[in-house]
Amino acid sequence: MATVAIVGSGFIGRAWAISFARAGHDVRMWDQSPTATGGARDYIAGVLGDLAANDLLRGQSVATVLGRIAVVSELAEALADAAHVQENTPENLDVKREVFSLIDKLARPQTVIASSTSALLPSKFTDHLQGRHRCLVVHPINPPYLIPAAEVVPAPWTSAETLERTRAFLVDAGHAPLVMKRELDGFVMNRLQGALLEEAFRLVADGYASVEDVDIGIRDGLALRWSFMGPFETIDLNAPGGVRDYVERYQGIYSNIFPQMLRRVDWGGEVMETVEAERSKRLPRKDLGDRQVWRDRRLMALAAHKKKSDQEFGQ
Amino acid sequence: MATVAIVGSGFIGRAWAISFARAGHDVRMWDQSPTATGGARDYIAGVLGDLAANDLLRGQSVATVLGRIAVVSELAEALADAAHVQENTPENLDVKREVFSLIDKLARPQTVIASSTSALLPSKFTDHLQGRHRCLVVHPINPPYLIPAAEVVPAPWTSAETLERTRAFLVDAGHAPLVMKRELDGFVMNRLQGALLEEAFRLVADGYASVEDVDIGIRDGLALRWSFMGPFETIDLNAPGGVRDYVERYQGIYSNIFPQMLRRVDWGGEVMETVEAERSKRLPRKDLGDRQVWRDRRLMALAAHKKKSDQEFGQ
Repeated sequence: MATVAIVGSGFIGRAWAISFARAGHDVRMWDQSPTATGGARDYIAGVLGDLAANDLLRGQSVATVLGRIAVVSELAEALADAAHVQENTPENLDVKREVFSLIDKLARPQTVIASSTSALLPSKFTDHLQGRHRCLVVHPINPPYLIPAAEVVPAPWTSAETLERTRAFLVDAGHAPLVMKRELDGFVMNRLQGALLEEAFRLVADGYASVEDVDIGIRDGLALRWSFMGPFETIDLNAPGGVRDYVERYQGIYSNIFPQMLRRVDWGGEVMETVEAERSKRLPRKDLGDRQVWRDRRLMALAAHKKKSDQEFGQ
Repeated sequence: MATVAIVGSGFIGRAWAISFARAGHDVRMWDQSPTATGGARDYIAGVLGDLAANDLLRGQSVATVLGRIAVVSELAEALADAAHVQENTPENLDVKREVFSLIDKLARPQTVIASSTSALLPSKFTDHLQGRHRCLVVHPINPPYLIPAAEVVPAPWTSAETLERTRAFLVDAGHAPLVMKRELDGFVMNRLQGALLEEAFRLVADGYASVEDVDIGIRDGLALRWSFMGPFETIDLNAPGGVRDYVERYQGIYSNIFPQMLRRVDWGGEVMETVEAERSKRLPRKDLGDRQVWRDRRLMALAAHKKKSDQEFGQ
C-alpha cells in the first residue's frame, strides 16, 4: 500500500480520502486553512459508518479505515512519502498554477500529481513545471467512494508511464478510470451530460414536455439500461446484428431530428422560470438539503445493489 | 378491472400483455398471423416465472396472471369489450393507417386506441378516422413490464379526456407515463438518447475517447444518479441553491463546448469501423444473444432493487 496526499479538504478532498483509505492507503490530508480540516475527520467517520452498514468497506471496520487518515499541518509533511497527490483547491487558474508549482517542488520526483478539476485543462496549469510529465487531471463524480467513474486526462506532456500508473492505482482502489487520449474542454462526462441537458432544456423551452416528463424519461426509462451497460453497449444489444445493425435500422430517425437541435437554448433565460417553478413546486427550496441526504442514501443503496449484481451476473 | 386488446403479438405486444395482465386486466391478444401467436403464451409464461422469482408480480401467482391472457382468432373478438387497445404492428405508415381504420370501425366509441410506434407521429395515421379524438401514441421502452416509462403522445385532435384516461390507466398498471404536450419527431426519449449518442460518436470519431470509455462515463458515472432522479433533479441537487444556482455556476463550462457540437457525425461512416471493432473485441458477435439474456436478468434485478428502494427511502 502507498501513501496518498490530499491537498484541499473540502467535500471532494474528503471523499477521495475515504476512497483511498478504504483501498488500504495511508492518507495525509492538508488544507491551507486549518479550520477547513477541523470537521473533516468527524464528517469522514460518519460516511464510513454508512458505508459499513451497506457492506461497502471491503469488510473492514470503520476504525481501521479511519485510522489510515491523518490531517497534517504542513504541505511538505503531506507530500513527503506520497506516491500519488490528489489536489482539490478552488477552480481558479491562478490558484491551480501556484499550488501545482508548490507541489512539484516539494514532492519526490516519482510522485504523480493529479488535479480533481472539472473545468480546467491540465495543460493550462502545468506547462511551467519541471515535473510536468507527472501531472494530469483525475476528475471524479462526487462522491467518488460511491461513483466509480473517474476521468483521467493527460496534458500533451503527461508521460505514458504516469497515465498507466494512475490508471492502475485507480483500478486497485475500486474505481473505473476513463482514460482520455488527449485533453478536451468538458472532458467526456460533462460533454455527454451537456448534450443531454441541452436537448432537455430545449424540450421544456419549446413547450413539448415538462421538467418532470424529461426526468421520467431518463429516471424510469433510458438510464435503467445505461446504469449497467452505458449507451454503446445498450444499442449494441438493441438490434439482432449488433451496433452496426442498430445504426442501419435507426439512424434515419435520428437524422430527422438533428437539424432541429442546432439552435442553442439559454438555460438561464426564460426557460429557467419554468424549470425553477416546476422544481420548486415538487421540492420546496427549503427542502433541498433533506433531499440531498435522500440522494446520498439512494446512491449508497444503488452502489450496494450494483456490487451484488456484478458478483451474481457478471459485469 | 378492464379488458385490454393487444393487436400484434411480437415482442412489444407480448410485453404489454404481461404488464396489463399483471395489473389485473383481462388481455385479449390478436395477430394477423396465427403462427405469430403460437409461441406467445409459452414465452409469456417463462417471463412471468422470472418476474415471480424477483417479486415483481404484485404477489400474484404465474397461473393467475397467465389466466388473464387469451389469444383470440378474430380482431372483432379482441376489441369487443376493450377499454384500451394497444397496437403493435410493423413501423410502416400504410400498415398503421389501415390497422387504425379497422380498429376505429370495430371498437366501441369510448375505447382508447393507442399505438406503440417509436417512429411515426400519431397525426400521420389517425387524421382520416371518425374516432381520431380517441387515438394517440403510447410508446414503451422495451420491455415495459420492467421499464416503467411510457411516452404518451397526442395528435392535435386527441381529446384531453383520452389523454387523462390513458395516463390514469398507465399509472394504475405501474407505469410512469410521460405525457407530451404535443407531438414531435423522436418524442422525448429518442431525442434525449440521440443527443447523447451524437456526442458519444463524436468523441470516438475525433479520437478523444474509446467506446468503452464513453460507456464507463455513463455506466459507472452519470447514469447512477440519473437512474433514480433524472437529469433535472440531478442538477437541482448539485448546487446549494438548486437548479438556477447550478446554471449560474456551470453554464459557462457548457457554453464553451456547444460550438464544438454543431458538426454532425455519420454514425454509419468511418467511426463505425472503430465502434464495431471495439465492441466485437469485448463481445464476439456470436455472443450477442447470451449477452441479451444477461441484460434482461440485470434489468430485472435492478427493477427489484428500485422497487425496494422506493419503499425504503421514498421516490
